[in-house]
Amino acid sequence: MQRKLFAEWLGTLFLLATVVGSGIMAERLAGGNVAIALLGNTIPTGAILVVLILVFGPISGAHFNPAVTLVFYIRKEISALDSGLFILAQVVGGITGVLIAHLMFENPLIDPSTHARTGTGQWISEFVATFGLVATILGCLKTRAEAIAFAVGLYITAAYWFTASTSFANPAVTIARGFSNSFAGIDPSHVGAFILVQLLAAVTATFTFKWLLEE
Amino acid sequence: MQRKLFAEWLGTLFLLATVVGSGIMAERLAGGNVAIALLGNTIPTGAILVVLILVFGPISGAHFNPAVTLVFYIRKEISALDSGLFILAQVVGGITGVLIAHLMFENPLIDPSTHARTGTGQWISEFVATFGLVATILGCLKTRAEAIAFAVGLYITAAYWFTASTSFANPAVTIARGFSNSFAGIDPSHVGAFILVQLLAAVTATFTFKWLLEE
Amino acid sequence: MQRKLFAEWLGTLFLLATVVGSGIMAERLAGGNVAIALLGNTIPTGAILVVLILVFGPISGAHFNPAVTLVFYIRKEISALDSGLFILAQVVGGITGVLIAHLMFENPLIDPSTHARTGTGQWISEFVATFGLVATILGCLKTRAEAIAFAVGLYITAAYWFTASTSFANPAVTIARGFSNSFAGIDPSHVGAFILVQLLAAVTATFTFKWLLEE
Amino acid sequence: MQRKLFAEWLGTLFLLATVVGSGIMAERLAGGNVAIALLGNTIPTGAILVVLILVFGPISGAHFNPAVTLVFYIRKEISALDSGLFILAQVVGGITGVLIAHLMFENPLIDPSTHARTGTGQWISEFVATFGLVATILGCLKTRAEAIAFAVGLYITAAYWFTASTSFANPAVTIARGFSNSFAGIDPSHVGAFILVQLLAAVTATFTFKWLLEE
Repeated sequence: MQRKLFAEWLGTLFLLATVVGSGIMAERLAGGNVAIALLGNTIPTGAILVVLILVFGPISGAHFNPAVTLVFYIRKEISALDSGLFILAQVVGGITGVLIAHLMFENPLIDPSTHARTGTGQWISEFVATFGLVATILGCLKTRAEAIAFAVGLYITAAYWFTASTSFANPAVTIARGFSNSFAGIDPSHVGAFILVQLLAAVTATFTFKWLLEE
Repeated sequence: MQRKLFAEWLGTLFLLATVVGSGIMAERLAGGNVAIALLGNTIPTGAILVVLILVFGPISGAHFNPAVTLVFYIRKEISALDSGLFILAQVVGGITGVLIAHLMFENPLIDPSTHARTGTGQWISEFVATFGLVATILGCLKTRAEAIAFAVGLYITAAYWFTASTSFANPAVTIARGFSNSFAGIDPSHVGAFILVQLLAAVTATFTFKWLLEE
Repeated sequence: MQRKLFAEWLGTLFLLATVVGSGIMAERLAGGNVAIALLGNTIPTGAILVVLILVFGPISGAHFNPAVTLVFYIRKEISALDSGLFILAQVVGGITGVLIAHLMFENPLIDPSTHARTGTGQWISEFVATFGLVATILGCLKTRAEAIAFAVGLYITAAYWFTASTSFANPAVTIARGFSNSFAGIDPSHVGAFILVQLLAAVTATFTFKWLLEE
Repeated sequence: MQRKLFAEWLGTLFLLATVVGSGIMAERLAGGNVAIALLGNTIPTGAILVVLILVFGPISGAHFNPAVTLVFYIRKEISALDSGLFILAQVVGGITGVLIAHLMFENPLIDPSTHARTGTGQWISEFVATFGLVATILGCLKTRAEAIAFAVGLYITAAYWFTASTSFANPAVTIARGFSNSFAGIDPSHVGAFILVQLLAAVTATFTFKWLLEE
């Protein structure tokens, strides 16, 4: 369990270092063209997800995401206690990753975001984004488990662009991004609603795919 | 059958949410540079196709496309009735996907496109695009079925750029995009000709590859 | 043999339709930023190569390139006569692909290029580009034949940018691009030197890898 | 051994020709937009790494990186003498690759960089970058060795953007880039500190993953 928690912590750390770090890099270099900045944020995020799932999948399952841990808890593949510890490791890992991104780019270490992300369009976006992410995982798990790392990386690559929220789809990521007043940030007062919608979507997708994939 | 139709509906829904959603996002952010907007539309579309075919392939075959269903009908791998139901699920799914994209981006829900896409160059483009898509599917199916999701995603990534129409290659997608006055839209009065050419190309490719691949 | 030649013809046709078509699309949309245009030319070309090698590899070996056919002739895996027919099919396919690209984009059908590509830097580039392409093919063939389609697509994606010539690396492609006065074109009077260097590099790489990979 | 050293030399040569060559191409074409230039430098570098590891992996292990050779030396999978020879081949190969890039783009052959890359943020970046690279290699090696080429290519694609240094993560690459006053260059007086941090991170990652992955 100790190694699993370390894997969840380190994996979520690298995920957030990438999301926030590439966001800072992309915004600094893009000369004000936000689409180019988003490309420079999307491609690294999709790429690192493939890598992190390949590396940490055999150790902890590579959740890096409390919504995903909830899915496996509902499916009775992880206990309540272990789920709680996983989620703690993910949240701490996510915040550590933001701090490391800030150290690398010499930003203030803690810098709460003022980036407003709220309203119906954003919430529907997070529902769709998280539903799709869980669908990707459960759909691949059953018959193409070896492709899951690539599928998740490609899914998030797409979801950055097809949702109005750029697809957080992950409560640990959402909390961590509240600490960064940069391209990828989110105003901390908008974090709660995002998480609520993400968890709701994860539950909905779990039951939908339970029906869809059962023998 | 119920689950197959649900899979075709949900898959086509996500496909159109991506095509239209990423088109809106890309156009809003690209600051008028259409090549950057098209990159922001291409990469998500190619990526989501890989994911959707991995997830829904084992359930329904992951057609998401009446032209593809027609190909399998000609090859006698699906009945006339099931083909009709598949196509219905695809068209309804496509339109639902457009509505969800509009909800996410807070666009008017139904907003017929005024984007003219007509003329010889466009029709030749749709013939080439659909011929190539069917070639990709039938070519891979025979000896590299496990690579088909990646092949289709990469094919559409290329076809967005090498055809003058940005490669619709799919009657359900064409109909659905008529409902969106955004980057990916098509004037509803130009939908009919596109579909005609797409079906013609699908039939041509089916017989070409029947000869090319037979023992 | 008839089907092999058809596969070489159709594959090279799609390759050139992509190279030239995406070049026209990218240049038209990029608003004068040549790096963005080259991205819009590179990504489709790399993507279609993966698809074409997956689809036509089991039929003809998916050469699409006289330099590659020469490599297999030196290795005694194809006869002199068949090599000649392959090369003819490739050259005709390449030119047909350019014509189809011009039809799709409503350009003049035949439009000799005025794009100068000559000088020592260009020739060294074509030597490096072709040497690397043959290295990719022979290196993968021996132990990772199933990855060859992806390796070639990724190699050309890289070579578009790391060579000063944007990496033609293919005599059939070079001849065909002489017929298109667009982004991907080459002045016909500069075609001969490119082909000479490409063939020289192919021979050098064949013998280098013969030594490197032999038991 | 002769063939292994040749493989390390030729692979590192192509790696540096790509890093430096695509950097020159991207900067020349990007019209001053540094994010676009970095995209044009990132995509080729990630792509060529996949290819080079597929091609040369079965011959030499495809290190191309003294930090990686050090990792395998600590793990007792390569002798001290062979490690020294590998590192020599890598450094010479890297410098040769820079010269070839300069020949292709008709730059001065040797042109020491004036690009300052120093300070805490840069050094933390190189620590994170190299730690992550070794994690990618050791994590995949154990259970997904067949995916390692893709994982390394994707990791570097991400690390170009999520680190403030654009992720050198390789002493041979760092030395070689000192010789090129172009987009990818580094002031030779800043090379030493980079290498020190890279080796420190490689050792740290080796022991971390020894604990994390042991039975």
